[in-house]
This record gives sequence, structure tokens and C-alpha cells, in this order.
Amino acid sequence: MKLYELVGRDKSIGFSPFVWRVKMALAHKGLAYETVPLHFTEIKDAVAFADCKSVPVLVDGDNVVADSWEIICYLEEAYPDRPSVFSDHHAAKLFNFQIALPLLAPLFRTIVPDIFEVIHDMDKDYFRKSREARLGRTLEEIAEDYEEPLSIFEANLMPYSQFFKREQYMCGAGPGYQDYALYAMFLWARATSDKKLFEDDDPVADWINRMDQCCGGIGGAVKKIK
Amino acid sequence: MKLYELVGRDKSIGFSPFVWRVKMALAHKGLAYETVPLHFTEIKDAVAFADCKSVPVLVDGDNVVADSWEIICYLEEAYPDRPSVFSDHHAAKLFNFQIALPLLAPLFRTIVPDIFEVIHDMDKDYFRKSREARLGRTLEEIAEDYEEPLSIFEANLMPYSQFFKREQYMCGAGPGYQDYALYAMFLWARATSDKKLFEDDDPVADWINRMDQCCGGIGGAVKKIK
Repeated sequence: MKLYELVGRDKSIGFSPFVWRVKMALAHKGLAYETVPLHFTEIKDAVAFADCKSVPVLVDGDNVVADSWEIICYLEEAYPDRPSVFSDHHAAKLFNFQIALPLLAPLFRTIVPDIFEVIHDMDKDYFRKSREARLGRTLEEIAEDYEEPLSIFEANLMPYSQFFKREQYMCGAGPGYQDYALYAMFLWARATSDKKLFEDDDPVADWINRMDQCCGGIGGAVKKIK
Repeated sequence: MKLYELVGRDKSIGFSPFVWRVKMALAHKGLAYETVPLHFTEIKDAVAFADCKSVPVLVDGDNVVADSWEIICYLEEAYPDRPSVFSDHHAAKLFNFQIALPLLAPLFRTIVPDIFEVIHDMDKDYFRKSREARLGRTLEEIAEDYEEPLSIFEANLMPYSQFFKREQYMCGAGPGYQDYALYAMFLWARATSDKKLFEDDDPVADWINRMDQCCGGIGGAVKKIK
């Protein structure tokens, strides 16, 4: 299998939160793959064959699948003998929406200037123009005001802190889709930003420690891109 | 079975969102029960036997169970032959936290002055004092500023609008725990307030219509307390 992924100036560290969902699912299932690391401005041409414009894209023999959710659903169907990441398919699908606007969106606004610092020089012009257009402000203005989106992120993370006070994983005795989806978001931040997203004694920190060790520690090995 | 519940000045209309979770679960399972309707200031003495201070309390023969989550878990265990409300126990437990701070809390601040209007006269002094102390403002001040918590509620409801654009229920082909827990919150508002919580063309409105018809229409029959 080949997984097309996004990297910064260090080609060995992928940082897309959506690619990380797939990587965790592949590890959960014990499926081997190689990655095709791409810079932002290489993606469009590189994945045109998959009739899409973004990563992740998975090529598995003759099968080409785009979109992290579609890829994970494909893996569930194509490899029914492997451990499933879903404890409940509907709850997993709902979870995508439960974290997109409340957590991913404010975290994006919190770390977007930091992401700019770790991407390849060839991407900088594209990244600045597209993100500044999307957010209606310069990266420098956003960098000055990061406390506001960070406080929204922190507030929306609180239900998870409450949950992890007593529970180990969102999917039961071991990690599953919801754990991987939320954890992938923290790997995105870890690879790109030094900002502190939660206190050391937050139950979320304990859960992240557990996640760092699962699936052979592939997430725990992620360092900030230099 | 006996279910101790909270009512306003109309004793026939229960409005506690936590009692409604249990009522929907009982209906889902086809279990018969009678209710013990209580005003706020009657609850403490009436449920002291259950070693708690709030409703719902369920009495099932020799078994006495307090707290909506505990009651529903009890029903699952005590009546394993009845349809389960859980498609995934862990996702259901997480859902309690996912809606408590983001949705129930701002909705409470939105409708608390309306609740005051529909409770029994005997409760008014207690309700005003306890709620004003909790919120740090008078009910009249809160009533003037309801747009702020309502806008938080609306923003936090958006993931569900997105989900229900394509999906019928949160628990799969039919309603389950997550559907009942969120729906119970809307019944709380319907019984106590005229405030508009979503647009008519919001996918949440379609889901509520479906919920109004499930379980013999017990939720659909709820009207605002006069």
C-alpha cells in the first residue's frame, strides 16, 4: 500500500491531522504501507490520478481511495479479518463533526502561523496567500491574537478532560476511531507548534501519553519539525 | 416501576431533561411505569429514601436507582431481553460530557427565566434564590441577555446540524441513547420556553420531527406548560 501524505521541510515528519487518522488506523490493523511525502504545492499534481486535491490518498493494489474517512471505511471492508477501529460506526461518523468545528477549527487558527514556520520554502507563498485569504487576516495578525482561538479550543476540550478523568479511551478498553481522530489533531500540533494546549495535570495529558504508546508508538515518535 | 420526576405548575408535564432521558429509554424498552410528579421544593424530602437530592429516581421492586445514567444502565442490566438503547456504551458515556457544557449549560442560561415562569408558585422563591446565586445575576438581568448564551448554544449545535444533513439518527437506523439524551434537552426547552433554538429548515428540526414520532410519540405530545 502507498499512502500519500503531507510533510514540511523535514520530509520524515508528516503532520496532516487527516493523514494521521489513517496512519493510526493502518497501525491498529497491522497493515504495512509506504508513504509518498509531499509538500503542499506538490499535492495537486501528485494526487490528480485519484480525482481529488488533498491528502491522504491510499493506493492499495488497484484500489485508489481519497479522504481519511473513506480510506478508513475502505480498510474496514477490505480487511475484515484485521481488528476493527470502529466500536460504533455511527458514533465515529458523528465524532468527525463533533471535533471539526469545535476543536480542529480553533486549533487551526491557533497554530497556523507556526505551521508556516515549518513548511518547505517552496510552499510558503502558496500557504500564506491561501490561509490569509481564508482567515481574512495576515499570518502576523493571527500570530498576535492566538489566545482567542486557543481559549475556544481549551473550552471545547473540557468535555474530554471530564471524560478522561475516569475513562482510559473513548472506544472502550483500547483505542479506536474516536481516539485516533482526536489524537491525530494533537500530533498535527505537536509536529508544528510549541504552544501549550493543556495543562500537564489535565486528564487529556494522561490519555495522550497512553496514545503515544499504542500502535507501536508511531505517534509518540513525532517531534516538532525543525 | 415508579419514576420520580419534576413538574411545573401543570403536574401532567414533566420537564427535567434528565428525567426525559429515562422516559425515552423506558419507552424504547417498552417498560411500563407510573410517575411521581414533584415540584422543586418537594424533591429533597420525597427522594431522601434514595439517598440523593434530585430526580430522576426509579423504584423497581426492591431496587432504588438515582441518576439518569445509572438508571438507564440499570435498565440495560435488569432487562437484557428488551431492546438496548446503547449502540456503544462508551460513546454514550462520552456523549453525556459532549453535550453537558457545550449545549445544556448555555441552554440553561437561555431558558432559565422562562422556567421560572412555568414552575409552581411554591417553588419560585427557592428557584430564584438558588439560580441567581449559581449564575451571579438576577433572573431579570439574565432574561435581557439571553442572546449571548443562545448564540453559544446555536454554535455548538452546528456539528449536529451537519451530521443530520445526511443521517437519520445518531445511533444508526433507529434512535438510541445519544438521540434520547439530546432530544430530552429539547423537550426541556419545549415545555418551558417559546424561544426559537434553530431555524425551521435546520436538519436538526427534521431529526426532532422523527424523534417526536418515535417511542409512541411521548415526546411529540409535550407542550409548553401554561
